[in-house]
Amino acid sequence: MVYTDIFTPLVSADVDIVTELIKKHPKNISDKVQFVQIDKLNPPRKQATKLVDMIRAGETEGLPVIDPKAYCLFYKNNNVPLYKSIVNLKTKTVEITTEEEGLGPMQGDFIEKLDIEVFEIPQVKEVLARLKLEDKFFNHPTLGKLGYKVISETWMYGNRGGADDHIRPKAQVYFFIKLDHLESNHYALPIPFTVIVDYFTCEYIDTVFLAMDANDSTPITVDRLDNWVIPEDIHKFEYYPECRIDYEPVLDLKPLTISQPEGVSYHVTNDNKVEWQGWEFYVQTNVREGFSLNNMYFKGRPLIWKYCLNDMIVPYSAKPMSKNPDETHMNALASKMAFDVSEIGFGNVTFPLGSGCCLGYIKYFDGCKTDIDGKATVVKNQVCMHEVDNGVQCLHKNYRTENNKLILRRRELILQTVATVANYEYILQIILDQNGAITTEVRATGILSTTAIEPNTKTDHSTVVAPGVSAQYHQHLFSFRLDPRFDGDLNTVVYDDFVPLDDDPEEWLVGFKSKRTFLEKSGHIEQSPFTNRTYKFINENVINPVSMTPVGYKVEIPPHQLIMAGKNSPNVKRAKFATKQFWAYHAGDDRNYVAGELTNQSKEDTGLAKWLEEDEKEGKSIRNAELSCNITLGLSHAPSTEQFPVMSMDKLEFSILPVCFFWKNPALDLPIATAETNKVVYYEDIVAGKESSSQTCCSKK
Amino acid sequence: MVYTDIFTPLVSADVDIVTELIKKHPKNISDKVQFVQIDKLNPPRKQATKLVDMIRAGETEGLPVIDPKAYCLFYKNNNVPLYKSIVNLKTKTVEITTEEEGLGPMQGDFIEKLDIEVFEIPQVKEVLARLKLEDKFFNHPTLGKLGYKVISETWMYGNRGGADDHIRPKAQVYFFIKLDHLESNHYALPIPFTVIVDYFTCEYIDTVFLAMDANDSTPITVDRLDNWVIPEDIHKFEYYPECRIDYEPVLDLKPLTISQPEGVSYHVTNDNKVEWQGWEFYVQTNVREGFSLNNMYFKGRPLIWKYCLNDMIVPYSAKPMSKNPDETHMNALASKMAFDVSEIGFGNVTFPLGSGCCLGYIKYFDGCKTDIDGKATVVKNQVCMHEVDNGVQCLHKNYRTENNKLILRRRELILQTVATVANYEYILQIILDQNGAITTEVRATGILSTTAIEPNTKTDHSTVVAPGVSAQYHQHLFSFRLDPRFDGDLNTVVYDDFVPLDDDPEEWLVGFKSKRTFLEKSGHIEQSPFTNRTYKFINENVINPVSMTPVGYKVEIPPHQLIMAGKNSPNVKRAKFATKQFWAYHAGDDRNYVAGELTNQSKEDTGLAKWLEEDEKEGKSIRNAELSCNITLGLSHAPSTEQFPVMSMDKLEFSILPVCFFWKNPALDLPIATAETNKVVYYEDIVAGKESSSQTCCSKK
Repeated sequence: MVYTDIFTPLVSADVDIVTELIKKHPKNISDKVQFVQIDKLNPPRKQATKLVDMIRAGETEGLPVIDPKAYCLFYKNNNVPLYKSIVNLKTKTVEITTEEEGLGPMQGDFIEKLDIEVFEIPQVKEVLARLKLEDKFFNHPTLGKLGYKVISETWMYGNRGGADDHIRPKAQVYFFIKLDHLESNHYALPIPFTVIVDYFTCEYIDTVFLAMDANDSTPITVDRLDNWVIPEDIHKFEYYPECRIDYEPVLDLKPLTISQPEGVSYHVTNDNKVEWQGWEFYVQTNVREGFSLNNMYFKGRPLIWKYCLNDMIVPYSAKPMSKNPDETHMNALASKMAFDVSEIGFGNVTFPLGSGCCLGYIKYFDGCKTDIDGKATVVKNQVCMHEVDNGVQCLHKNYRTENNKLILRRRELILQTVATVANYEYILQIILDQNGAITTEVRATGILSTTAIEPNTKTDHSTVVAPGVSAQYHQHLFSFRLDPRFDGDLNTVVYDDFVPLDDDPEEWLVGFKSKRTFLEKSGHIEQSPFTNRTYKFINENVINPVSMTPVGYKVEIPPHQLIMAGKNSPNVKRAKFATKQFWAYHAGDDRNYVAGELTNQSKEDTGLAKWLEEDEKEGKSIRNAELSCNITLGLSHAPSTEQFPVMSMDKLEFSILPVCFFWKNPALDLPIATAETNKVVYYEDIVAGKESSSQTCCSKK
Repeated sequence: MVYTDIFTPLVSADVDIVTELIKKHPKNISDKVQFVQIDKLNPPRKQATKLVDMIRAGETEGLPVIDPKAYCLFYKNNNVPLYKSIVNLKTKTVEITTEEEGLGPMQGDFIEKLDIEVFEIPQVKEVLARLKLEDKFFNHPTLGKLGYKVISETWMYGNRGGADDHIRPKAQVYFFIKLDHLESNHYALPIPFTVIVDYFTCEYIDTVFLAMDANDSTPITVDRLDNWVIPEDIHKFEYYPECRIDYEPVLDLKPLTISQPEGVSYHVTNDNKVEWQGWEFYVQTNVREGFSLNNMYFKGRPLIWKYCLNDMIVPYSAKPMSKNPDETHMNALASKMAFDVSEIGFGNVTFPLGSGCCLGYIKYFDGCKTDIDGKATVVKNQVCMHEVDNGVQCLHKNYRTENNKLILRRRELILQTVATVANYEYILQIILDQNGAITTEVRATGILSTTAIEPNTKTDHSTVVAPGVSAQYHQHLFSFRLDPRFDGDLNTVVYDDFVPLDDDPEEWLVGFKSKRTFLEKSGHIEQSPFTNRTYKFINENVINPVSMTPVGYKVEIPPHQLIMAGKNSPNVKRAKFATKQFWAYHAGDDRNYVAGELTNQSKEDTGLAKWLEEDEKEGKSIRNAELSCNITLGLSHAPSTEQFPVMSMDKLEFSILPVCFFWKNPALDLPIATAETNKVVYYEDIVAGKESSSQTCCSKK
C-alpha cells in the first residue's frame, strides 16, 4: 500500500541526503557543522488519516500527497545557537532552517569526548592525584593483582535556576574508581567530587565537592580525598562474572526454550507493516523515542494513530548544598534529573537486541542514528517482536457436564526495546493480545546511581547499598503518548466512578452504580482508585448495538505518587506531565513532545504546559474532537540492598482495553487448548527418564 | 524429614478413617450422617515451628510430637445443628464433637439434588409451563432443529437480615433456558423468576419474581412469562464451538510450545515438598482453600509459615425490592453475595488440570474431597506447578565496552489451581522468582451472572451484554492469608511514606525522604498510593549489615475500591476483611478463617471482626510478635460486551518482595542469557524456510 511510506523509518541513505544538503547549504558551507539528531518528521495527521481512509476504502483518485521529511538538529563551530532544518526527502531540499532557543540533546560523540578530555583538566588532575590510587592494588582470586583507575561519567547539567543555565551548554562530570578491568563495577566506588565543564570545549567551569555525612549537607573538603580508602569488602559488589570474587553459578537451572515448529503467527511486509491476530500497525523505529506504533487497527477498526513512550524524567532526592542564587552549581545532586528520551534518545543508546533479550522466533527492526559528522550508523535490532504464551485468556466449564471445557490461551505479541542510559536500563514493552487490548510495560533495571558516604553512616533519603556507597531515593516518571482514533477521528474523554446507588450509606443497602463525567476542556483527570475511577475514550458517534452505549476503550492506569519536587522547583517547571497521570488535549501537528522539543537545560516546559495554556485561551471543547493524550507512570524508588550491584527489575504497567467496543468477546474463535496442543509432560515421567529429550503428549494419570 | 508429615494433605485412606469413626460413634450410630466437609487440621504453629527449627538445626532428641488430625463437618438426619468433630488420625479417635451455631458450606451432592428436585415443585412447574417452551424450536445451522429446556442453578441464600436466615438452611434457585444441547449457554436466557427452598428437603418456601425494568425496581407479574419470547439473535451468544452459529476458527495462530530438554529445575520429594532455586516449601492441597504453601524458606531463611487464598466474596449491586423486614426474601439479587472459598470450597470445584491450563513440563498435586455419604474422591491434578520464562530480570551493559552485557532472565515457578464456581472461574496463581519474591495473581474468567431485562432497556447498575440479558455490576473481593516468619517468629509491621525532605513545598527544593510508622496494635493500614505507602514486615532482631536497617519484606498491594455496600448491610457485617486492604493481628491456632469458619447464611463475621475485638481488649502490642496478616484485593466489575458469552480474564495481583533482607541481589549468580541459550531464530529465516522445523541458533545479521 502507498501509505506504508509515511511510517517508514529513516535509513542511512536518508541521513546521507540530509547531511549532504545541510553541509553544502550556502549558510553552512563555510562552517563546521556538528550534527546532533536527525530523524523522520511525523506526517501531518489530518492529511495522513485522510490518505489512510481513502486507501482502505479502495479509492485511488485524488489521494493526498505527503512528502517524506526529516528534521535535523545541529550546532556550528562549537557554539550556540542550535539550528533546526526541515529537509524534504523527496524533493531533496532544505525547506526551512530556524535558530532554536533551547539546547540540543546530549550527543554521544560529545559525551565520549568529554569522558576522556576531562582528565586533562589541571584541577581534575590535582584532585585525583590525592587519591593515591597508584599505590593501591587488589589481589583478585581469579584475575590476579589488579590496580585501580578513575573513570568519568558525563551527565546533563540540568537546570539549577542559574542565570545562564538555559543558554550555555554545560556538562556535569562524575568520577568513580574501578579495578583495572573493562567490566569492573565503578558504581561501587564513587568519588565525592564532580566538575562542571563547557559542553563543546570541555573548558573547566567549576568543581563541586559532595557531602558524605548523615545529614547530606556539608560538602567534604578536598583533603578528605587524601589517600582514599578502598574497603576490601567492596569487591563483593562486582557484577560481571569474570570480575566477581564470590561467583557461584546457579547450576540447577535447566534450559527452557520456546518452539514454534510451524512458524510465527505474525506477518511483516515492507519491513514495517505488521499483521497479527486481527491487528494491523506500522512499527517505526526512531532515535528519540526508540520506536512508535502507528495507524493501529484491530479487526478492521481504527484505534490509535500513534503510540509511543514520549518522554521521561528521573529526578533525585537531595538537599541543596546552597540556596544562594550565585551558587546554584553547588546543587549537583539536587539537580540530578535526566530526560532520558529527549536529552539522550532511546534509539541512540539501544544495544543490538537478539543476544539474550527474548526467546525463540523473533523479528527485529533496525534503527538509524547519526554521528557528530553526519555519518549514519544502522542500529541493528533496535526493536524486537515475538510471540509469547501468557496463560489462560478465557476459561469455562459447565459444572453439570463431565469433560467439555472451553480453555482459550492468551497469546501475546510483544514489541520491545532496551535503552542503556549510563547506569540504568529501561526495557520498554508494548504487548498486544487477541482481545484488542494493549498493555505497556517498563522494566527498570541496570545499576543504581551512587554517591560516596562515610563508613557506618546513613541518611533519611538514601539507602546504603554497599560499604561507603549511598543510593539516593529518586523517581522514574514516564510519559506515554497516545493519539486516539477509536472508530474514527472524533473521540471524547470521560471518566466513570462507582458510587452508591442511594445516598444514605448508613443504610443496609448494597447497590452501586457508575457515574459518568465528561472531560470538557483540555487538561487532566485526577486519579481516584477508591471510587474505581476509569478513564475512557468513547466515540459518541458510534453506538454499540448490544449495550446501547457509545463504543469505547478504557485506560487502566495504576495510581502512582507523582513528582515529589516543590511546585516552584526547576524539576516541576520543566516537566508538567509529571504532576498528573492522565492528560488529554487537542491534537496538533506541532504538538509532539510532551515536555518540549528541547529539554536539555530547559527552564520550562514548552510542551504540555504551553498547549494547555493555548487551549485554555482558545476555550474549545474537547468533546467529539481530534485528541492527543499523555499518560504518566511513576516509580518512587527507595533503593534496597537487593538492587545492587545490578537491580532485579522493577516493573510498571498500564493497559488500554476495549469496553463495549465490540459487541461480544472478540477472542472467542481461538482454538481450544488441550494437553495435546500444550505438549504436556508429567514430572513423574521426566524423573523416570521417559521424556527427557523428546516431548510427546503423555496420557499418564 | 519428619516434619514433612505436618503438611501432608488428607488422602482417601484418611477420609475413610474419619467417616468410619464418625458413622460408628455411639452418638451417631443410629443417625443418618450427612458429611459436609472433611480436611486436615492445621498443626499448632508454636509446636510445629519449634519442630521445624530443631530438625533444621540437626537436633534429634526431644522433638515435639504433633499428631495429624482432621476436622469433619456433618449434619444428621437432614437437620441442623451442624456438628464438628476433630479426629486424631494417628490414634484413630474422635477427640471432640461440638454442635456449631452456624451452617455448613453448600455441599455438592445437596446442590445436585436440589438442581433436579426443584422441578418437582408444583409452583415451579406451573410458572415454567407459562413459557410454552415445548412449542419453540431453533433451526441450528450445524446441529439441526433443537428444542429448548429449562435449567436450574442453585445458589446460597445469603443473609437478608431475616429472623431465621441464620438458622434455617435454605437455597435460592435461579432458572434459565437453553437449547437442548449439553453445552448450550443458558446464561444467555435467564428467566426473571427464582424460588427459595429448604436446603435439606427442597421443600418450597417462596417464589420471587425479578424486575426487568430500567429502574430495576418493579418485579414482573407472572403473566410476563406467558409464551416467553426468545430473541433469534440470542444464539449468537453460544460459547461452545459445537453450539456456535458463527464459529470461525482462528487459523493463523501457530502453535507455540515450551521445551525443557534437560528436565525441570524443581525437585519434589514425598509428593509435597518442593525445592527450586533456593526456595523450599510444602504444597498442601485442601478442600476449602484449594491449596496452601507452608513453611516457606528462601536461601535457608524462613519467610512465611502458611500462605493461601483465605476467603472471598462476590457481592452484586441491585435495588432491594422490599425494605419491609417481613419481605427480605424479595431481595434476591441485592442479597447475591457468594463466599466462594468458605461456602463452596475451591477444592470441591476444581476440574482436573492438565488439559489446557499450562504448557510443557508439569508437576500435578492431587486433592481429596468427600461426598455426602463419607466416600472419598481423589481430585486429580487439583494444583499444577511449572516453570515459565518471564523476560529479563536483570540487565546491564557498560556503554563504554563493545560486546559484554549482563542479561539474566527471569524464571518463575508457578503454582496454579482453577475453581469453577457455577458461572465464574477463578484461576489462582502463586508465582515465585529467583529474587525471593512472591507474586500472587487471580484471573477472573468464566461467564457473567445474568438476569433478564426488557428489550431495548438498560439500567444504571448493569450492562446489557446480549439482547434481553443484563449483567449486574458486582465486586470480587479476595482475602489472602500470610503468616509472616521473616528470619524468625517475631516480626513487626511498619509502613513507609515518601514525604518532602523539608516542610515548605512551595520552595524550589526537590528532596524527599521516607517516613516510617509502626503498626502498634492489631488492625489495618489505610492505602495511600499518592505517598507511595508500602507495607513492610521487618524483623527488628536482625540487622542488614550493609544497609544497617532491620531486614524486611514489603507487600506491594495495588489500591482498590473496597466493598461498596452500606456499613450496616449484611454484606459488610459478614465480611470485615472486605473493608480494608491490609490487616495484621496476633497469630492464634484458632484464627484460621478470615470471615469465620462457617459463613453460609452467616449474620456476622466471626473471624477477623472477632479477633480484632479480642486483641483490642487484650491491648497487647503487635511489635516484635507472632503475627498473621490478611491482604484484600478488590475488583469492581462493570461488565462489558467483550466479556460475554465468556469473559476474557480480568487480572488482579500483588507482590511480596525482599527489601534490605539480603545484603545484595540474590539473583546475581544466574547464567548469562545469549542468543544461543535463548535459541533465537530470525523471522527472515523462518519465512525463507530455513528454520521451520529445527531450531538452531542463527548467526544471520
